[in-house]
Amino acid sequence: MTDALSRADFEARLRRIGAERYHDLHPFHHRLHGGDCSPDEVRAWVINRYYYQHSIPMKDAAFMSRVEDPDLRRAWRSRIEDHDGTETNEGGIRRWLRLAEAVGLDRDYVASCEGVLPATRFAVDAYVRFVRDKSLLEAVAASLTELFAPKIHASRIEGLLQNYAFADDAALSYFRNRLKEAPKDVAFGLAWVLDHADTAEKQDHAARALIFKTDVLWSQLDALWGAYVDPARIPPGAWRPGEGLAPGAEAA
Amino acid sequence: MTDALSRADFEARLRRIGAERYHDLHPFHHRLHGGDCSPDEVRAWVINRYYYQHSIPMKDAAFMSRVEDPDLRRAWRSRIEDHDGTETNEGGIRRWLRLAEAVGLDRDYVASCEGVLPATRFAVDAYVRFVRDKSLLEAVAASLTELFAPKIHASRIEGLLQNYAFADDAALSYFRNRLKEAPKDVAFGLAWVLDHADTAEKQDHAARALIFKTDVLWSQLDALWGAYVDPARIPPGAWRPGEGLAPGAEAA
Repeated sequence: MTDALSRADFEARLRRIGAERYHDLHPFHHRLHGGDCSPDEVRAWVINRYYYQHSIPMKDAAFMSRVEDPDLRRAWRSRIEDHDGTETNEGGIRRWLRLAEAVGLDRDYVASCEGVLPATRFAVDAYVRFVRDKSLLEAVAASLTELFAPKIHASRIEGLLQNYAFADDAALSYFRNRLKEAPKDVAFGLAWVLDHADTAEKQDHAARALIFKTDVLWSQLDALWGAYVDPARIPPGAWRPGEGLAPGAEAA
Repeated sequence: MTDALSRADFEARLRRIGAERYHDLHPFHHRLHGGDCSPDEVRAWVINRYYYQHSIPMKDAAFMSRVEDPDLRRAWRSRIEDHDGTETNEGGIRRWLRLAEAVGLDRDYVASCEGVLPATRFAVDAYVRFVRDKSLLEAVAASLTELFAPKIHASRIEGLLQNYAFADDAALSYFRNRLKEAPKDVAFGLAWVLDHADTAEKQDHAARALIFKTDVLWSQLDALWGAYVDPARIPPGAWRPGEGLAPGAEAA
């Protein structure tokens, strides 16, 4: 039987997964943040990424539905509040829909999830099912891609502001809020994983869960690239440039 | 094909299910509210009913994990808050643990769910699974036993206060709070079911779901009666009088 890594070494192992596999390394993000995306490529990203946003509270509810400890449920509930909103916080999903309007899309069209790429659905639904079916440790470990998110949000805000006319504070408020919200979530999740992955076997499971999650994120960008970038090969039923525009918005 | 009932007739059909099958009709509740339960019978009820309480937020999270509409998720989330608590509300689960202490049980023992009757677990777990697996309409319809709850909470408060030394405002705060919380939930749930059960087939499904839920509640009291009342036949591993007492509490 292998010995478990120390807490510090295991954390380093998890962070290495991010350094090697997180989707900030994907060429679509370089293209997006560097200002090389066409307006329609940005729109396709906003439409498809919305499906991920709208599914995340379902994922978190699936997690809570398996947690017997009221304290852990209470701690986790703030993630749902951050996305779905509260009386004093409009929530990430509505913020994303403001981004959708800013890039010229119809809010209701985006919220309908019509036009989302099947590959996006498959990847995102696989994540919700993973959290429903796997151990709680694997579910929490999969959420640790948030360890790597602040960097991507910060460079996204900077890159979008510099390079796209639609980008202003209102349009980008989703990312600014995630910069505030994600650190508390990930501090909790990381501590929980380090506490509970107390054997080599559990550390392997947690690491594999985090790898799975990086695959979920990466494959969404692969699908986006294949459908809309180079050369664009839009699958049947998926959004086509010119569809779902906000009233008054121009086709690009 | 049968025609759907009118809204009013369908509501009456649902209410009849409560009138005929809700667990306020069970002899255990007559015994409890009438002051005829021994202290150990009350303790057994508190221990087993805790398992139901602690599972309800898991059930509600399972529901939310399947809801794609952020507005519906937001409306439903208050149920979890009511049970698990918020910064300003200790929540129903902690209130139930205060009742446990008031009847002489150790809070941690009750919270551990050790000693819960297997039949209680089977019934309650069946409810969580039902909500995870069935249609959203059936899940909401199953929650409508809350239509019948205010009556039982009110007569419980009155009966317990009259008949048991442990009963005071702090011990019974769970029930008083449910009198406030349940009506808003059930008004929402009933309207949702009446809106969505728009065919005879869906009305049948909703009615069967409500019947299922009355079975879940009733069978918990049957199990309690069989194990602890007349004649008591406590199954292996379940709580036995004298176990799990609060420091200083006396065996009855």
